[in-house]
Amino acid sequence: MGLLEETQKEIRPLDAEEAWAADERLNSLTKPPGSLGYLEEIVRRYAAIRRDGSARKGRGAIAVFVSDHGVADAGVSAFPQAVTVEMLRNIAGGGAAISVLARRFGYELRTIDVGVRSDTSAAPFAGVTYRRVGSRTGNFLNGPAMTTGQVRLALEIGVETARDLASAGVTLIGIGEMGIANSTSASALLTALCGLPPESIVGRGTGLDDPGLRRKTEVVTRALELHHSALGDPMTMLAALGGFEIAAMAGVCIGGAACSVPVVVDGFISTAAAATAEKLIPGLIDHLFFSHRSAEGGHARVLEHLKVRPILSLDMRLGEGTGAALAMNVIESALDLFHNMATFAKAGVSGKVR
Amino acid sequence: MGLLEETQKEIRPLDAEEAWAADERLNSLTKPPGSLGYLEEIVRRYAAIRRDGSARKGRGAIAVFVSDHGVADAGVSAFPQAVTVEMLRNIAGGGAAISVLARRFGYELRTIDVGVRSDTSAAPFAGVTYRRVGSRTGNFLNGPAMTTGQVRLALEIGVETARDLASAGVTLIGIGEMGIANSTSASALLTALCGLPPESIVGRGTGLDDPGLRRKTEVVTRALELHHSALGDPMTMLAALGGFEIAAMAGVCIGGAACSVPVVVDGFISTAAAATAEKLIPGLIDHLFFSHRSAEGGHARVLEHLKVRPILSLDMRLGEGTGAALAMNVIESALDLFHNMATFAKAGVSGKVR
Repeated sequence: MGLLEETQKEIRPLDAEEAWAADERLNSLTKPPGSLGYLEEIVRRYAAIRRDGSARKGRGAIAVFVSDHGVADAGVSAFPQAVTVEMLRNIAGGGAAISVLARRFGYELRTIDVGVRSDTSAAPFAGVTYRRVGSRTGNFLNGPAMTTGQVRLALEIGVETARDLASAGVTLIGIGEMGIANSTSASALLTALCGLPPESIVGRGTGLDDPGLRRKTEVVTRALELHHSALGDPMTMLAALGGFEIAAMAGVCIGGAACSVPVVVDGFISTAAAATAEKLIPGLIDHLFFSHRSAEGGHARVLEHLKVRPILSLDMRLGEGTGAALAMNVIESALDLFHNMATFAKAGVSGKVR
Repeated sequence: MGLLEETQKEIRPLDAEEAWAADERLNSLTKPPGSLGYLEEIVRRYAAIRRDGSARKGRGAIAVFVSDHGVADAGVSAFPQAVTVEMLRNIAGGGAAISVLARRFGYELRTIDVGVRSDTSAAPFAGVTYRRVGSRTGNFLNGPAMTTGQVRLALEIGVETARDLASAGVTLIGIGEMGIANSTSASALLTALCGLPPESIVGRGTGLDDPGLRRKTEVVTRALELHHSALGDPMTMLAALGGFEIAAMAGVCIGGAACSVPVVVDGFISTAAAATAEKLIPGLIDHLFFSHRSAEGGHARVLEHLKVRPILSLDMRLGEGTGAALAMNVIESALDLFHNMATFAKAGVSGKVR
């Protein structure tokens, strides 16, 4: 039995009793009952996922997985493939959006190369962890993007990342990604997973023009036809249409759930990872927070399909974990309120009369 | 000419050129153009309000105005009137939700008694600023809530608060309030200002039961009939239906605009203040940020009517400036990204190809 199966066996349903304990404290705080709205639901779910009614808070961390995609050859991105390795350096070097937000909020940032086309591991960029599954995926218009061995390895890298962070005292993990053309891979996965027409899912990614958007939609349509027989099983589906970073993020979702650490899903591409993880392990989605409703393609529709409520809705479509970082700060704010507000008894505040 | 008129004369339209300068830098940062979504609009508006294309960031502060309402006698709140003074102490003492959030984000918290029924100024609570306009307003079922002299005084207290904070280096001011029965006052004002039926505006406040909600709606309906002739002019409308804290918050909106400091409006009651200020000085609303869509009554409808986009939507309905504090952190995050992300040129990242 491999790491994946062992990890899967550790995942338990949410702990409703611990959520209840947290709710009791929420109702003792000096505010009208329920008046913190969704923040109260966030605290209850955090307690249920952590199996800890006192909702203790540790450190936050963001894991950004960076990888390239063979399907970039089909001209589906507004930016050249070289941007992936350039952004790998920029993220680890502190200049990317996620670098700024991680610094701002005090979150550890792990930048992990899981298969960028240019292999820089011999002269490594400072701050990058190299866990390369390959040098970009295959173009899924010509065959599967990955072997099932690669899928398993990428998933396990994600699981190990989550386990490692959890054992270092992290209690909230954000996932993010960077990889030119990965919104094409995510669109194909989400179209297959949600059973919706490609036109309702595919978006402009980093800013495609109209002909580019048409081409991208055709690519997704052709890929779904080509790999039709692989779509029944999540592992073969991931092999056919996925990417190393998407599989790794799915692995973090699985590993986080096993360690009772909530994983905060970023935007469109991270949601493809989360939805794939849910297909692999039904019920896993309860252990996740969805950070924001992205402006990319059919993300809003996908969130509805998954029956999840995003914390933020700011029309962001940048990836990297930027939405996750902002939402983690909301989650931590909710926990701060939970821990540090006075109770009615302690503050000498009168209760409800009608 | 009084402080109010002098201040009003200083208000200029937003500076579109400075917004344009900020936009140029936004487009030079290592991200797909526009991919930070509403965060980019926030930066542009901040620059336009501040008249500063480099969008420099100073300190943040939250001004919470606390006051009582005569209409509480009509049984329109789920909590007794004594809670106002109890919460005045709790907010300044560090135990309220806004106290926790202000501490978390490093915002100065000003807690200002503008007319709590119990006068504690002789043995003052630590941390409270006493600027009492009166000992609670009159019950507006029996006559106007305030004299026009009181309205002017409360507005000026708000203006002075904004000026004082601005001169101390504050570049972002959140407004909040506490006052048992003030959602009844705000409902009456918003019903009059938006021209919508009371049933579509009035909500449960701190948690009214069904008979309480019916009574509150009747109270608003009766008040609007009684004060019908006062509703054409914003000053007499505020006198008839408003509250000291609502007028003071409207004053902060005015003072902030005059000092080129963006004011961040909290929820339902703060929105009544902002809408009143906009009625007094058309165009003022451009200088404000609306922090969140509250779950209270018709707040969503009111925001639509005002044609403003809230930053957050978390079903909060607590007041005190809690939504403002959370949204200020989003605004500051947007400014951090603006200042600290690398440019394409500096990071050596390739540009768009299609």
